Amino acid sequence: MPVITLDIGITSLEKKAALVKELTAKASEITQIPEDKFVVLINELERDNIGIGGKLLSEIMK
Amino acid sequence: MPVITLDIGITSLEKKAALVKELTAKASEITQIPEDKFVVLINELERDNIGIGGKLLSEIMK
Amino acid sequence: MPVITLDIGITSLEKKAALVKELTAKASEITQIPEDKFVVLINELERDNIGIGGKLLSEIMK
Amino acid sequence: MPVITLDIGITSLEKKAALVKELTAKASEITQIPEDKFVVLINELERDNIGIGGKLLSEIMK
Amino acid sequence: MPVITLDIGITSLEKKAALVKELTAKASEITQIPEDKFVVLINELERDNIGIGGKLLSEIMK
Amino acid sequence: MPVITLDIGITSLEKKAALVKELTAKASEITQIPEDKFVVLINELERDNIGIGGKLLSEIMK
Repeated sequence: MPVITLDIGITSLEKKAALVKELTAKASEITQIPEDKFVVLINELERDNIGIGGKLLSEIMK
Repeated sequence: MPVITLDIGITSLEKKAALVKELTAKASEITQIPEDKFVVLINELERDNIGIGGKLLSEIMK
Repeated sequence: MPVITLDIGITSLEKKAALVKELTAKASEITQIPEDKFVVLINELERDNIGIGGKLLSEIMK
Repeated sequence: MPVITLDIGITSLEKKAALVKELTAKASEITQIPEDKFVVLINELERDNIGIGGKLLSEIMK
Repeated sequence: MPVITLDIGITSLEKKAALVKELTAKASEITQIPEDKFVVLINELERDNIGIGGKLLSEIMK
Repeated sequence: MPVITLDIGITSLEKKAALVKELTAKASEITQIPEDKFVVLINELERDNIGIGGKLLSEIMK
C-alpha cells in the first residue's frame, strides 16, 4: 500500500485528477504493485507557505 | 515525543477530539510512553485531494 | 483511505503489530471508515534523530 | 535538496517569511549545503487539528 | 518546488531511479512546472513498518 | 507543539545536534512559542532515495 504524497501549490481539479491517474499508473508499472494499492495525498500549499532558498514563493513570484 | 499524523477526509470536531484522545491512550498503553509526550497532527484533505487506485475520492464517491 | 503515520523511536515487532492493530481498530470505530481502508506507516527514528526542546533525545536520555 | 517541513498553528505572514529566511540560513550554515537548495513547507493547522497529551489544542487553550 | 514523497516497501536502485525519472516527468508535464523544480523523497519501509487493515504487511505476505 | 521535520542526506551527529538546537531556538524566537514545545524529526535519506530534477542525487553527485 504505497503512499504518494504531493506537496504542491494550489492546483486545478483537472490537474489533480490527472496527477492521481498518471502518477499511480507510472508507479504501478515500475514497481509491479497493482494500481488499486496506491494512495495519493495532495497537500496544496499557498505561496505564502512554501519557501525556496530562504524566500517565500509569494515574494519570488512577485 | 512520538508524533502521530492522520491524513484523513474532512472530519467533525467530535471525531477529531475522540481520535486524539483514543489514539494517544492506545499508543501510550502499548509503547509505555506517557500520554503527555504524544503529539497528534490531523491533516484534513478534501475528496479532490485524495487518490485511490488512480482515481480521486470525489469521483469514486459520486 | 486514511493514512496514520507514526514517527517514533525504535520499537519492537510486537509493539508495532499491536500499534497497527489497535490504532486501526480505534480510528475505524470513531470514523466509521472500514478497517481495511486504513494504512499505517511506522517511521522508526534513532534517538540521535529526534529533538525535544532543542536537545537530541540521545542527550536527554543519557 | 533538503526539505524542512513545519507543522504549526496558524501563523502570520511576517512570521512565516522570517521562519523561511532564518531556518534556511541556519540549516545552510550548519550543513554547508547552499541556501538555494533548501525547500521549506509550512503546514498550518487549526487548533482543532493538533493534539497534545490526548487533548485538542483548542481545548487546552480555552 | 513541489515535493513528491513516496512511502514504499524496500525497492531496488533501478526502480528508484525509474520512479524519480518518470514521476518527475509526468508531474512536470501535467503541472507545467519545470522538471528541475521537483524534489522526490523515497521513504523505504520494512514490511514490519507498514500496516494495512490492522495487520502488518509482514504478516499479510507470509 | 510545533513539529519541524527535516528530510536530509546522511548527517553527522554533531550537525544533527546543532540543527536541533539552532532551528528550535530560531523558530521559538520567531513564533514566541517556548523551546520546550518543539519537536524536531530528522529523516536521513541515502542519496539513492533523493531525486532532484528527475535524477537520483547519487547519479548527480557522481
